[in-house]
Amino acid sequence: MTEAERQPRPVPEHSRGRISRRGLLFGGAVAGVGAAAAIGVDVLTRASASPAAVPTEVPDADPAAETVPFFGEHQAGIDTVPQAHTTFVALDLRPEVDRAGMIRLMRILTDDAARLTGGKAALADSEPELAVLPSRLTVTFGFGPRVAALAPEKPSPAWLGPLPAFSVDRLDPAYGDGDLLLQVGADDPLTLAHALRMLLKDARSFTTLRWQQPGFRRARGSEKVGTTMRNLFGQIDGTVNPAPGTRDFEDLVWIADRSSWARGGTGFVLRRIEMDLDKWDRLDREGREQSVGRKLDNGAPLTGSREHDEPDFEAKTVVGFPVIAEFSHIRRARLADTSRRIFRRGYNFDAPPTAEGISHSGLLFASYQADVEHQFVPIQRSLDELDLLNEWQIPVGSAVFVIPPGCAADGYIGETLLG
Amino acid sequence: MTEAERQPRPVPEHSRGRISRRGLLFGGAVAGVGAAAAIGVDVLTRASASPAAVPTEVPDADPAAETVPFFGEHQAGIDTVPQAHTTFVALDLRPEVDRAGMIRLMRILTDDAARLTGGKAALADSEPELAVLPSRLTVTFGFGPRVAALAPEKPSPAWLGPLPAFSVDRLDPAYGDGDLLLQVGADDPLTLAHALRMLLKDARSFTTLRWQQPGFRRARGSEKVGTTMRNLFGQIDGTVNPAPGTRDFEDLVWIADRSSWARGGTGFVLRRIEMDLDKWDRLDREGREQSVGRKLDNGAPLTGSREHDEPDFEAKTVVGFPVIAEFSHIRRARLADTSRRIFRRGYNFDAPPTAEGISHSGLLFASYQADVEHQFVPIQRSLDELDLLNEWQIPVGSAVFVIPPGCAADGYIGETLLG
Ligand code: HEM
Ligand code: HEM
Repeated sequence: MTEAERQPRPVPEHSRGRISRRGLLFGGAVAGVGAAAAIGVDVLTRASASPAAVPTEVPDADPAAETVPFFGEHQAGIDTVPQAHTTFVALDLRPEVDRAGMIRLMRILTDDAARLTGGKAALADSEPELAVLPSRLTVTFGFGPRVAALAPEKPSPAWLGPLPAFSVDRLDPAYGDGDLLLQVGADDPLTLAHALRMLLKDARSFTTLRWQQPGFRRARGSEKVGTTMRNLFGQIDGTVNPAPGTRDFEDLVWIADRSSWARGGTGFVLRRIEMDLDKWDRLDREGREQSVGRKLDNGAPLTGSREHDEPDFEAKTVVGFPVIAEFSHIRRARLADTSRRIFRRGYNFDAPPTAEGISHSGLLFASYQADVEHQFVPIQRSLDELDLLNEWQIPVGSAVFVIPPGCAADGYIGETLLG
Repeated sequence: MTEAERQPRPVPEHSRGRISRRGLLFGGAVAGVGAAAAIGVDVLTRASASPAAVPTEVPDADPAAETVPFFGEHQAGIDTVPQAHTTFVALDLRPEVDRAGMIRLMRILTDDAARLTGGKAALADSEPELAVLPSRLTVTFGFGPRVAALAPEKPSPAWLGPLPAFSVDRLDPAYGDGDLLLQVGADDPLTLAHALRMLLKDARSFTTLRWQQPGFRRARGSEKVGTTMRNLFGQIDGTVNPAPGTRDFEDLVWIADRSSWARGGTGFVLRRIEMDLDKWDRLDREGREQSVGRKLDNGAPLTGSREHDEPDFEAKTVVGFPVIAEFSHIRRARLADTSRRIFRRGYNFDAPPTAEGISHSGLLFASYQADVEHQFVPIQRSLDELDLLNEWQIPVGSAVFVIPPGCAADGYIGETLLG
């Protein structure tokens, strides 16, 4: 088929009729969400007319059939309970792609994403049998500076572009920047591989690949929904995080500026952070717990006994030192100004080691915030100045994108910028 | 801790008391196994005192707790229902490692594997919290020619060593051969990453890494146990395969020679086969089905209607051509001599693409057979001579190992060779 044939098509029935989140939140159907949000865990709050999208503590009879609606005010894949697998891909536009070309590309990719996330084959899908188990597939798009510049009359967020330099950085351009971000997540690795290939195939005449970074968490069903993930240091990672479905989350994550094309979208930062597991293993448990300010076994703050206990940063040891040390990661990452917070939704990576080494493991640190400059940068600056964890972690990749808002079934992602 | 301290320790209770497979097969507890085996599907037949190891069609309440016993007559990970993720790793012995050193290494790795597969931390595990969800973890060891040569008085299978050259081969030594194979599989990627790191860490003073190849199938619970996997061509792959738990499987897979140290073990062939998905996508569905001799939608032979229907190789079209073409993969892969069959248990791979390409995808073709020369080689030779699938697949890696038999709780893998 030719590109001219690629026009948005009617979308699957179950993706329509998006119920407002507020309506759902205060409705009876998702009573569990409020309770879960109150204890600060990740919950699936993407509103949907499909009962399959409502989170449950017990695995569904048919988890592979579960879908996350693609269309809506915001893109999926951000307030979605993290899937077991996510691959982040950055593409660069070919030099000849202009605004019209970019619109064509985004119409095609929107159509692909809508179908695939609904468990349907993409148009002209070459392996339609691989599209049938959506497994909570989400596809999230982000734009780099070059895409934003295609519509120069529409001002873009001032922070869009490379982050300021940090002294901890050892950045490899092979993992940096990019024009178009694809974030593709699913609980099933085969579903993910197929969706990614369909998207890359359709993007190919418009773009070249810049980087591709696969990440993982625990398999779906390994732990109860709402369990905070562990990273490869063995730490519980993600405890203090705004909870999707709350006002707090809405305020911190979604861009609110009515005059901006990015309204309803968010700012995205991906940092590829290598973790020196060998060096980490030489540190005893107490040292590890001190470096973060939390216990390894259950993630409780050193001043508490349960994961979600509020840390007491004033508490002192008998000899007068702070129980949660000055150099600890959680003290340094929490700024006095509470508007300077971020939503973290990271993934582990474990790339094949080199001959003498053991592994190239680490964290695909992914954070979402309305204003990267106001929220992410000061936290990273504080960590750059002092954070004992810096001893074992090396940022080797860094990229910033605007994630545009979602769209309706007859629209396409990016229309507020490009249209 | 020092290496001297590393002696095999008592094993977890639930790994003891291995019930004989035959006893289980004809007992009531696994009535479903017989039925499943009768229709030729993969079934979990690794005998175990733990009810969690008995296959069920419905996901367990706590699938992450499920264990596959490590100790036994055969190593686990071969007749085990394939896990969602498996990583194959080849290590090379450091020049100074002699037979005594190899014994030390295998005692350590056996101990690690026994603990980790039982959901327990390894000795001196640096991240014990990552060891608690075994998720059907298996660790399978294999020996290359250099390990076999450490005990020159014990003759090794004549086929141990590189395969003969095939005209389709485009072998990259980066994916070839090796001294010690680790095959580590689990349904949970974090469990796998942790187990692999513990093993590699303990192996490090004895070995260097040669290659590491991660593979995947569908997530656990995505499909019913017994569903044949699909590969990235979208094909159902694994239909005609000896069924674990049957006499046929025992005869084809396990080495029976009473005089051999490898008795109770098997021969392992790993072929890394790139699949040219772009070229494949240019072929229409009929062409694809002809190339294999089976239908894409349900895997039925072109002469049948259901996946497990027996292909009719004699059937002719109205114009007199065979319905299952002479060049078709299934015709070429089935030899007249039925002792020349193999057990396939492969995995998909999807390595990050290069800038202009779309993907480096393919199949980690893994087969297990008592006699590589008698079983695998003639099939591969037949495919090398004629197989339409050769148009789209390129073998880029090739390795052969002897998988030694299993061991008892007070033994170690490799003792029949090294002891
Ligand atoms: C490999 C790198 C990193 C590791 C291993 C790591 C690990 C952790 C851990 C274990 C916690 C405590 C549990 C929790 O609340 O999640 C934490 C908290 C946190 N981290 Fe990180 N982190 C890393 C990088 C970063 C980066 C780059 C940032 C932002 C620039 C960041 C921001 C935060 C924040 C905001 C918190 C919550 C602090 C609070 O209690 O208010 N982390 N991290
Ligand atoms: C990328 C490479 C390959 C692909 C995509 C592939 C795919 C398939 C497919 C779709 C089938 C039919 C369904 C089934 O019974 O599993 C099949 C059957 C089979 N393949 Fe392959 N295969 C590949 C490589 C190989 C290799 C290297 C061998 C052995 C040297 C092999 C041996 C067999 C055998 C023995 C059968 C069963 C034939 C029978 O019906 O008796 N395949 N393969």
